Amino acid sequence: MAGRSRETPLVGGWLGMCALLACNVASLAYFIRSFLDDRRRRRTATRPVANAAGVHPPPADDDDDVAIQPPSSEQHYIAAVAPGAVLNLELGDPTMYEPFWRGVGPRATTVIPGSDTMSYFSDAGELCWFLEPEFERAVRRLHRVVGNAAVDDDGDGGGAYHFVVGNGATQLFQAAVYALSCDADEESKPVPVVSAAPYYSTNLQLSGHFRWAGDANAFTGDREYIELVCSPNNPDGAVREAALSSSSGTGKPIHDLVYYWPQYTAITVRAAHDIMLFTLSKITGHAGTRIGYATSIAWLWLHCFIALSDNQWLRLSDCRWALVRDRDVARKMVYFVDRSTIGVSKDSQLRATKILGVVSDAYELPRAAAAPPPPRLFDFARRCLAERWRALRAAVAASSGAFSLQEETSGYCNFAKQTVAACPAFAWLRCDKDGIEDCAAFLAGLNIVARGGEQFGGDARCVRVNMMDRDQVFDLLVRRIASLKIEQPDYLDAF
Amino acid sequence: MAGRSRETPLVGGWLGMCALLACNVASLAYFIRSFLDDRRRRRTATRPVANAAGVHPPPADDDDDVAIQPPSSEQHYIAAVAPGAVLNLELGDPTMYEPFWRGVGPRATTVIPGSDTMSYFSDAGELCWFLEPEFERAVRRLHRVVGNAAVDDDGDGGGAYHFVVGNGATQLFQAAVYALSCDADEESKPVPVVSAAPYYSTNLQLSGHFRWAGDANAFTGDREYIELVCSPNNPDGAVREAALSSSSGTGKPIHDLVYYWPQYTAITVRAAHDIMLFTLSKITGHAGTRIGYATSIAWLWLHCFIALSDNQWLRLSDCRWALVRDRDVARKMVYFVDRSTIGVSKDSQLRATKILGVVSDAYELPRAAAAPPPPRLFDFARRCLAERWRALRAAVAASSGAFSLQEETSGYCNFAKQTVAACPAFAWLRCDKDGIEDCAAFLAGLNIVARGGEQFGGDARCVRVNMMDRDQVFDLLVRRIASLKIEQPDYLDAF
Repeated sequence: MAGRSRETPLVGGWLGMCALLACNVASLAYFIRSFLDDRRRRRTATRPVANAAGVHPPPADDDDDVAIQPPSSEQHYIAAVAPGAVLNLELGDPTMYEPFWRGVGPRATTVIPGSDTMSYFSDAGELCWFLEPEFERAVRRLHRVVGNAAVDDDGDGGGAYHFVVGNGATQLFQAAVYALSCDADEESKPVPVVSAAPYYSTNLQLSGHFRWAGDANAFTGDREYIELVCSPNNPDGAVREAALSSSSGTGKPIHDLVYYWPQYTAITVRAAHDIMLFTLSKITGHAGTRIGYATSIAWLWLHCFIALSDNQWLRLSDCRWALVRDRDVARKMVYFVDRSTIGVSKDSQLRATKILGVVSDAYELPRAAAAPPPPRLFDFARRCLAERWRALRAAVAASSGAFSLQEETSGYCNFAKQTVAACPAFAWLRCDKDGIEDCAAFLAGLNIVARGGEQFGGDARCVRVNMMDRDQVFDLLVRRIASLKIEQPDYLDAF
Repeated sequence: MAGRSRETPLVGGWLGMCALLACNVASLAYFIRSFLDDRRRRRTATRPVANAAGVHPPPADDDDDVAIQPPSSEQHYIAAVAPGAVLNLELGDPTMYEPFWRGVGPRATTVIPGSDTMSYFSDAGELCWFLEPEFERAVRRLHRVVGNAAVDDDGDGGGAYHFVVGNGATQLFQAAVYALSCDADEESKPVPVVSAAPYYSTNLQLSGHFRWAGDANAFTGDREYIELVCSPNNPDGAVREAALSSSSGTGKPIHDLVYYWPQYTAITVRAAHDIMLFTLSKITGHAGTRIGYATSIAWLWLHCFIALSDNQWLRLSDCRWALVRDRDVARKMVYFVDRSTIGVSKDSQLRATKILGVVSDAYELPRAAAAPPPPRLFDFARRCLAERWRALRAAVAASSGAFSLQEETSGYCNFAKQTVAACPAFAWLRCDKDGIEDCAAFLAGLNIVARGGEQFGGDARCVRVNMMDRDQVFDLLVRRIASLKIEQPDYLDAF
C-alpha cells in the first residue's frame, strides 16, 4: 500500500507534467497573440490619443431582443488612431463641454474627505434613502432657474414630486418600466413598452413584467402599455408628445426629457408629467459621473391643477390613476435601484451637487458680485452647438446632394427670452445618393462610425451622429462630409 | 357650428370644474396625511440622528423568487430615534471604519477638478473601457501588499487576470452569472445558480439565462450549473471551498471573496480562482462609493501553472475550459455592466484609487519616512472587530443561555505573520431559549433588527447581525443582549 501510494502520485506527476507541457505548447501561440494584442492596444489607445481622436468603443448593438446578448466581437473596443482616425460618433459622449469646465476652474472642483459618505445611506428616513439631500436641492434649484420642469411646490425641498436618483438615465428608465409594470394583471404581462419611431432603442433587460414592443404608431394592443416619450427626441431632436392617448387609463407614459435644456431646444413650457427622466451628462457633460434622476408626481391636487391649467380636464382620469400610483411608483423605482446596484455612488452625487450649483450660480447670483462674471453653461453650449450646426449644414449643402439633415426648427424660449433655433445633440443624417441603402456602411468607408437608422426603428439610409464630441473630432467630421463634393476614387469605391 | 363649438368647452369647463372640486375634496385627507408624514420623517430622520441611532432602512426582503418584487410596505424606510432606538443591524453597513478615516485626515481626501473624467470612457482601447487604469493599478498593488489574491503577473498592469469594475459586488455577481450562462445550451437554460446554505441570498433578477436554485448541498442536477462560493461566508464567516465538484466541467464557480481580508480572517493562501469578486465597502468601509471589482483568469498557461503549484493537475480539464472561456467572461461582464448602467462612476473610481493608495502606503512605505506613522487600516479594523467579538461573546455567555454564536476559529495569517482568530463581519446569532422559533421576531422585541436565518436558506432560530456599525450602536446591542440575564418582564413578554 505504502509503495503504491508513493508510486501513484509519481506517475500522476509525470502524466500531469506531460499534459501540462502539451497544454502550454498548444496555448503558446494564443498567449503570444493575446500579449501582442494587449501591447498594441496599450500603444495605440492611451486615453489622450483615443480621446483626441474621438475613438470610442460603441456599445453593443441595440436591437429589439429584450434579452441581453453579448457583442459579436471585441473589435469595436480596439481603437484606431490618426491619421485617418476612426471618428466614433455612435455614442453621445458630451466631451464638447470640457473646455467650459476648464474655464470655470477651481469653483467646480469637488473635494471629498476620506471619512465622508461612507454609509450605504444618505437619509435613512427618506423614501429614496440613497439620495443625497444636497443633490436633490441642487436639482430643484436648477429646474427653478431654467423653468423646464415643475419639480417642486414651494421650494422647501419636499413636496410635489418624489425624486429618485439612479446610475444614469438608462437604469432609471428600466426602474420606471419595472415600477409601472410589476403590479399589472397577469394577463397583461409582459406589459408592452412602445415609443414612436425613430426611437432610442432602450436597453430593456429580460423580464417577465415588460417587453419591448417597438413603434408606438404601429401599436394596436388594447391592454395596458407603457409609452416612452422622448422630447426632444433621440435621435432626430423632434419635440414630441405621447403618440398614444392615455385617456382610457391603460397607457402609462414615461417622459424622457434628458435633452429638454436650453442649449438643445426652446424651453416653451414647464413640463409637468407623471414621470420625468433627466441625466447630468446631457445637462453639464459629466457622463463619467453616471448620475441620472427621475421625478414622479406625488399629490393628486397638484396634478389636477396642472392638468387644468393646461386646459386638459380629460386628464382627470389620470388623476384617479395618480391617486393610486403616487408614492408607489417612486417606491418601486427605489426598490429596483436598490436590488440592481444597492443605490447610487454618493461621490457622484456630491460632484453633481457641486457642478449643478456652479451652473445655477452663474445665472442667479448678481453679475456684479463676481469679476470676471462666471461663465454660463447654457450660453456656452448653445453657442458651440449653433456653430457646429451651421458648419455641418454647410458641409451637407456642399456634399453634392449626397446627404441631407433634419429640418431646422425654432421656437420662443422662455429661458433665453427670445426665439431660438433647435440645436439637437444628434444629427439625423440621411444619405440621398442613389445606390446607398446603408448609410452607416457608407460612412464607415469614410472612417466615420455612426449608429444606423434601423437601430432606431427607422430608415437604414439614416444615421445618428453625435454632435457633442470634441472640436478636433467634429472638425474632421465636417471636413470628411464636405470632401465628398470633390470626386475621390477612394470614397467612390463605396458606391 | 360656431355656436356649438363655443358652448361645448363652456359646458365641459363647468363639468371639469365640478369634477375637479369633488376630486380635490376627496383627496384632501390623503394630501394632509402625506404632508404630515413627510414633515414627521423630516423631523425624526435627519441623517445624524438616524446614523447615530444606527437606524437604517433594511433592503426589501430577499427570497428565492428570482423575479424582483416590491417591498410590502414603506415602514422599514421610516426611522425611529433614541431612547430605545431601533438598532438596524440587518445590512452590513461598515460605518465602524469612519473613525479610522477621520484619523487619516487630508491624505485621504479626494479632489476632482470640474473638467476631469467627463467622458463615458476611461480607456477606449481596453476591454473594460470604463475602468480607470489608476484604479486597476491601486487594486493590483493592494493585493500584492496583502497577498490574498493572485491578480497580476509581473505587475505591469496587464496580464494574468482581466479586471472588471462594477457598481458594487451585487452588480458584478449578476454580471458574472450572466457571463457564465448566456451561451449555455438551450436545454440547460435557465442555468441553476446554487450556493451552500447558509448562503447570502443574492438579488438575482428575472432572466431566461439563469435561475436561483438554492442550497448547493441539496442540488442534484447533472446539467450545467453555477456555484457561488462565498469565503469567508456571509452570513456565518465559515471558510469555504466549492461544495460541488467541477471536475466534470459542468460546474462553474464564482468566488465571492469580499471578506477575504486580514481584519476578518487569516490570509492562508493567495487565492487564484477563475472568477473572484471583491468590493471596496468591505475593504475600507466605503460602502457609499459603490465600487466593486471582479477578476477573471486570462491565460491558460498561467492558470495551469497555478493549478500545478497547488498540486492539482486534475484541474487540467478546467484549463481547457479556461482556454475557451478566457477573455470571453470578462467581455460579457463588461457588456452586462454597459447595458445596465453604461459603466461605473469615474468619481467613485478616483476616490477608491486614493483610498486604496493610502491603505497600501501605510504598509509599504518605510515607517521612518513619515512621523507620526500613518495609521494602518487592517490593524485598526482587526483590533476593533476583535474587541467587539470579545464583548459580544461575553454578553452571549451572560445571557443565561438565551443565545449562542458560531464557533471561534483561527489560523496562521501570512499577512499578519502570526496565528489569528477569525473576526467575521457578521455574527450568526442563535436563539436557544425554549419556545423561540423565530429569532428575528424575538430580537425585534428588543428593538434589534436582524436578518432571519430562513432568508439565508438556514434556520429561523438564527439571525445575521452586522458587526461593523458604529460604536454607539454596537454598545447598545451588547447591552441589550447581556440584559437578558436579568429577568425583565418586558422582554419575557416575547416568550
